[in-house]
Amino acid sequence: MPDSVPLPTPEAVLFDAYGTLFDVYSVGLAAEQLWPGRGDALALLWRDKQIDYTRLCSMSGRYRPFWDLTRAGLRFAAQKLGLPLDRAAEDRLMNEYRHLSAFPENREVLQALAARGVRAGILSNGDPDMLAVAVKSAGLQDWLNPVLSAHSVQRFKTDAAVYQLGPQALGLPAKKILFVSSNGWDAIGATWFGFFTLWVNRAGAPLEQLDTTPTRTAGNLRAVLDFFPAS
Amino acid sequence: MPDSVPLPTPEAVLFDAYGTLFDVYSVGLAAEQLWPGRGDALALLWRDKQIDYTRLCSMSGRYRPFWDLTRAGLRFAAQKLGLPLDRAAEDRLMNEYRHLSAFPENREVLQALAARGVRAGILSNGDPDMLAVAVKSAGLQDWLNPVLSAHSVQRFKTDAAVYQLGPQALGLPAKKILFVSSNGWDAIGATWFGFFTLWVNRAGAPLEQLDTTPTRTAGNLRAVLDFFPAS
Repeated sequence: MPDSVPLPTPEAVLFDAYGTLFDVYSVGLAAEQLWPGRGDALALLWRDKQIDYTRLCSMSGRYRPFWDLTRAGLRFAAQKLGLPLDRAAEDRLMNEYRHLSAFPENREVLQALAARGVRAGILSNGDPDMLAVAVKSAGLQDWLNPVLSAHSVQRFKTDAAVYQLGPQALGLPAKKILFVSSNGWDAIGATWFGFFTLWVNRAGAPLEQLDTTPTRTAGNLRAVLDFFPAS
Repeated sequence: MPDSVPLPTPEAVLFDAYGTLFDVYSVGLAAEQLWPGRGDALALLWRDKQIDYTRLCSMSGRYRPFWDLTRAGLRFAAQKLGLPLDRAAEDRLMNEYRHLSAFPENREVLQALAARGVRAGILSNGDPDMLAVAVKSAGLQDWLNPVLSAHSVQRFKTDAAVYQLGPQALGLPAKKILFVSSNGWDAIGATWFGFFTLWVNRAGAPLEQLDTTPTRTAGNLRAVLDFFPAS
């Protein structure tokens, strides 16, 4: 849908967490200190394997918490890149993952949504503990409610059971909810599910070549506000 | 399970097709002619996106044939790498994909299995047309029956519905069937499902850091024969 077409105003927003509100590549700095010149490669492959594992476990009905799969992804990535990962390095990187940086525009966007009376929450693959710590670390707890986790259905995105947590918790149909993600595949999955979607394409990635497109695409989170004209 | 522990002899073998019998990276040569110095990168990313798309479509209940997802993966990969993919280049690469090289040891292994009276077939994400052409191009049609495709259940691996095609077609329980794959994730999914598994780790990849391991791991397809002692 071209950005110029007026859309019905959604009644609530759900944000993906990892990559969208929290910068999953901020762990690259700590990795860079451990393995100079390889930090970015580790952060990229770690993220890829983490996502990979959510899909395998979900498709095979072998759910494991996101935290465990994050650790498993780290171990695989380090081994694949030939980086020695002792227990101390693993703990350090996992601890970084627990306290990821939030993107700088988050707070102003969440404040502006609150000022316009729009409810905002999280709908994430992360498990409840991880999400609680991340939200609190970033000082965003006053603006995000509900915080919905895939853990409660023991499936991961893009399984419809996960997205369905949104309509269920908000008491709204999917078509009244805006879902925001920086992950192209998540924006596509959410569009298939029936949400309005905003793909925050921070990295300038190509559009997924599947049979749908996100409702809108933008470079940062501020574009959320364009869905909610100030009255 | 250590390779030295004697296993009960399976009653049939099912091979994964892409990556296992057919070399998905052989398209890198054609890609290299189109884009010198970038052929391998294209082949790697193409394969990753193809698999990625099978999972997204399967998890979201949006099945599309493997052939279509292979083309979609190619388009994404070319765009991501900044390689100009006109219609002629796309058709050429897709045609290469239709006629992938078979690994050199395939024929002798399939002949030896037949000589030992062991039934061998394929269980693949590929759609029936792709599989039929690939098997025939490689001259393997006399040794592979049944050829089972994910298409019949409109799901992709590692969904149990796909692996279940094996026991159903062979009239054997999963624990009497050996499943062979070069894809670590496929070997894990099949192990979870209940098959004996052989991971043909041609690329020397790290083991997936999940909660199980393939029954055995080897460097090429000949290790299949070790499951079937000559009588």
